[in-house]
Amino acid sequence: MISIRESNIICKKKPTLKNPICVVGLPGIGHIGRISVDYMIHELKAEKFAELYSPNFFPFVVVHDDKIHTLRNEFFYYKSKKKGGRDLIFLIGDCQSFVPTGHYEVCGKILDFLKSLNCKEVVTIGGFATGKIVENPGVYGVVMEDKQAKALTKYGVSLDVGGKITTIIGASGLLIGLAKPLGMSGFCLLGETSGYPIVTDPHASEAVLKVLMKVLGVKFELKNLKDKVDHMYGFIKKLQNVQTQAMEKMQPKGDEDLKYIG
Amino acid sequence: MISIRESNIICKKKPTLKNPICVVGLPGIGHIGRISVDYMIHELKAEKFAELYSPNFFPFVVVHDDKIHTLRNEFFYYKSKKKGGRDLIFLIGDCQSFVPTGHYEVCGKILDFLKSLNCKEVVTIGGFATGKIVENPGVYGVVMEDKQAKALTKYGVSLDVGGKITTIIGASGLLIGLAKPLGMSGFCLLGETSGYPIVTDPHASEAVLKVLMKVLGVKFELKNLKDKVDHMYGFIKKLQNVQTQAMEKMQPKGDEDLKYIG
Amino acid sequence: MISIRESNIICKKKPTLKNPICVVGLPGIGHIGRISVDYMIHELKAEKFAELYSPNFFPFVVVHDDKIHTLRNEFFYYKSKKKGGRDLIFLIGDCQSFVPTGHYEVCGKILDFLKSLNCKEVVTIGGFATGKIVENPGVYGVVMEDKQAKALTKYGVSLDVGGKITTIIGASGLLIGLAKPLGMSGFCLLGETSGYPIVTDPHASEAVLKVLMKVLGVKFELKNLKDKVDHMYGFIKKLQNVQTQAMEKMQPKGDEDLKYIG
Amino acid sequence: MISIRESNIICKKKPTLKNPICVVGLPGIGHIGRISVDYMIHELKAEKFAELYSPNFFPFVVVHDDKIHTLRNEFFYYKSKKKGGRDLIFLIGDCQSFVPTGHYEVCGKILDFLKSLNCKEVVTIGGFATGKIVENPGVYGVVMEDKQAKALTKYGVSLDVGGKITTIIGASGLLIGLAKPLGMSGFCLLGETSGYPIVTDPHASEAVLKVLMKVLGVKFELKNLKDKVDHMYGFIKKLQNVQTQAMEKMQPKGDEDLKYIG
Repeated sequence: MISIRESNIICKKKPTLKNPICVVGLPGIGHIGRISVDYMIHELKAEKFAELYSPNFFPFVVVHDDKIHTLRNEFFYYKSKKKGGRDLIFLIGDCQSFVPTGHYEVCGKILDFLKSLNCKEVVTIGGFATGKIVENPGVYGVVMEDKQAKALTKYGVSLDVGGKITTIIGASGLLIGLAKPLGMSGFCLLGETSGYPIVTDPHASEAVLKVLMKVLGVKFELKNLKDKVDHMYGFIKKLQNVQTQAMEKMQPKGDEDLKYIG
Repeated sequence: MISIRESNIICKKKPTLKNPICVVGLPGIGHIGRISVDYMIHELKAEKFAELYSPNFFPFVVVHDDKIHTLRNEFFYYKSKKKGGRDLIFLIGDCQSFVPTGHYEVCGKILDFLKSLNCKEVVTIGGFATGKIVENPGVYGVVMEDKQAKALTKYGVSLDVGGKITTIIGASGLLIGLAKPLGMSGFCLLGETSGYPIVTDPHASEAVLKVLMKVLGVKFELKNLKDKVDHMYGFIKKLQNVQTQAMEKMQPKGDEDLKYIG
Repeated sequence: MISIRESNIICKKKPTLKNPICVVGLPGIGHIGRISVDYMIHELKAEKFAELYSPNFFPFVVVHDDKIHTLRNEFFYYKSKKKGGRDLIFLIGDCQSFVPTGHYEVCGKILDFLKSLNCKEVVTIGGFATGKIVENPGVYGVVMEDKQAKALTKYGVSLDVGGKITTIIGASGLLIGLAKPLGMSGFCLLGETSGYPIVTDPHASEAVLKVLMKVLGVKFELKNLKDKVDHMYGFIKKLQNVQTQAMEKMQPKGDEDLKYIG
Repeated sequence: MISIRESNIICKKKPTLKNPICVVGLPGIGHIGRISVDYMIHELKAEKFAELYSPNFFPFVVVHDDKIHTLRNEFFYYKSKKKGGRDLIFLIGDCQSFVPTGHYEVCGKILDFLKSLNCKEVVTIGGFATGKIVENPGVYGVVMEDKQAKALTKYGVSLDVGGKITTIIGASGLLIGLAKPLGMSGFCLLGETSGYPIVTDPHASEAVLKVLMKVLGVKFELKNLKDKVDHMYGFIKKLQNVQTQAMEKMQPKGDEDLKYIG
């Protein structure tokens, strides 16, 4: 039996993981999180092991390539090849909660599930819209504790977001913010991007991926990124369009201004 | 005790069914699903065995013929007369969830109930508004798997909806989309119709019924369809009017544009 | 422990009742239900035995006579003085669910509670706004079954509402409509009233009370009605004002048009 | 496991308290409650023992001083130094429920938790916007029972709010209003303040603190209040700004007029 009043994580095969860290790439500005994490999954040949369906997602299915696609989030794992290395969990998704009150429920389910996999650290990937086009986009970090800040600074991450970012909306913020009361920890990595009209920003994603290699202690080629983004573009654009349209129709006036950082 | 925080399926008599397939006709464009399935129930003398009430339906009762009518969905069954034939479950209803977040809950209850009846396949019937009036309306199929596509093509169903349909909103989409994570399968049949102003489209319903006879392996007369539609017209129109009015009053601006395909 | 995610019925003393019928007077047009039932409680000296609090009520307390008043519904009982007579349960309240989706939850709790008191019949009292001022307001009945219609006709109740009433919104409709799937029955009595600007309509309430005496087989004086209505006027008007204001502020545009019949 | 469908109180260490009274300071007009209670916590060196997280809070985290801050309410306790004196529980918070229907859920959790700490009395602190600037702001009380009124009058609290206050919205009202059905009691203290544009009103807070010393039977210096308010100003202003913006974006038109007294 499936309960459709709550988010359901359907786990085909629960892997045994060593000190895993979860990297989260959900839809947001420039789809930097989604692209980065999808690319890592592809390059590292990470294995899918669970899916999350939620009544807080949009109440429709998407028709793509003449087939029905059910909105979902997906979990993958990757076992470290290095001795003593940390295993990785990846979480990507088609969407976040479309009702404001649903974010806590979805994030609570995800964190409980991660905890059951012995995962104690979460990194969410998002975009930081600075409004200007830059050649070498920076990567910003928002942390919960000082020691995380120190570690990130070593990898060239800027911790100076003061004043420019006041809130992180949705799962990218709450997965970190709720990790603490659950005895977990986490931080948020944001790739610098010009802003909204761009559907996918591979440039910012590349900057984030370079940092993630250092943070996670993994190596992969970056040369296939452009091809991968081109391949994903059609589906991501469709998802964004139908969700934006649905938000405008189903949500009260003014909601189109609710820009997600995430 | 009845829980009115969740949808309730009140089942008077649970039938024993052989490999049943469920055909769903809920309100939507041209009421093609509702009319087609109602007609099959009538012609095949299918027997009612359960009713679904939901807190996600509109918070009112309808007064019709000076009596109170409670909004509900209804389940019927039909035992195949052919040796080795599949039994049928029919689901029709006055309404779908009127809150966007309720569709998952209602569909989850329905799928759990169908599973408990050994039903592993669901067909939802809807309309596809092409905006033009045609003499011989086509029937379109949207599937989850390639093998379903092949089977439908044999029956003259067009699988080429690409670009024209991007989402299927509500139960007609979610019943199919959520069937998969539950280990079930399904597809959606859409009758071609001109669009919204028409309350009931018997023409498109007839086209769908012809396909359904082949898909389900049943036979019935089509000659009574016009009479049956005439008979249903008053009640369906009242239901549509009160629900449209309620949506306009209870839901945020812009929602009147939320056209259901289903 | 109190669960404030669901409506709570706090019952101090569960009475043993003989074949009781429940008479419901919740806020609505002209407050005919509230006034009529309150008056009967007063005249028959019915005893309070339970209170219902609900998270679906408005999220505020009312300040009246410099004291805090918590929004609630209240249950009273009256034991028949006649041999073989039916006992009575009265339900009055400050408000109904202020969110559309809450009506089912509140009504479900009420019906489950009534069932636990061996109550199998519910009468809801409301107003029917005909838009004209009449000297002798009529009383209309909306039923679920033909035999109820026959009984009411004997008492001068008109069953001919066809076309004039298409829906009964909120508890006055749903308590009847949901009674049936629970194995209970009920009907709705509506006093003819001119319409909305009037806060309280004692004239229509008197007409309803005369019918109720016959339906319920009880007798009481009607001469104190005007005094009682004058006494209740201030509090009812305050409740109506704060709820109307809150609806306008908390609910989407257009909701002020959502006129309750009940 | 944490349930994020309901408010969670994470209690590190449950203190044993003597006849405790709980003083609540949540966001509201002039932040009088928050400031007063925060100041008492500081002066009395009260100890934090629990945190409340809620899915009914805003679905974002706040970035302050380059770190992530999760929205929460916090419980502190203070053991009386006087023989036979009452212990104190303090409750402060970043926010209240941002959805109207969430207030009951949050308040229910708080009251259940207080009851488990043997607490039977709750005082909520808020502001009363009179629209005029006064030199010596008054303190108003709204009670549930006459005996509370008598006690407060002795301390210079005015009970005469009649006509000026018709509702108390949110937790400041519901914590008192729901205390009664739970077998608890409480009252509300409101500091007179000019109205909305002021973020923090230390003047009114001081008036309230003077009354609270008498009501609670504790003593502390008031000379550090201005410094403390200056210190809190930046964070409180940020919280208010992001919440006001979120309300405007996420809630239907007109909601910006929903002024909280609390």
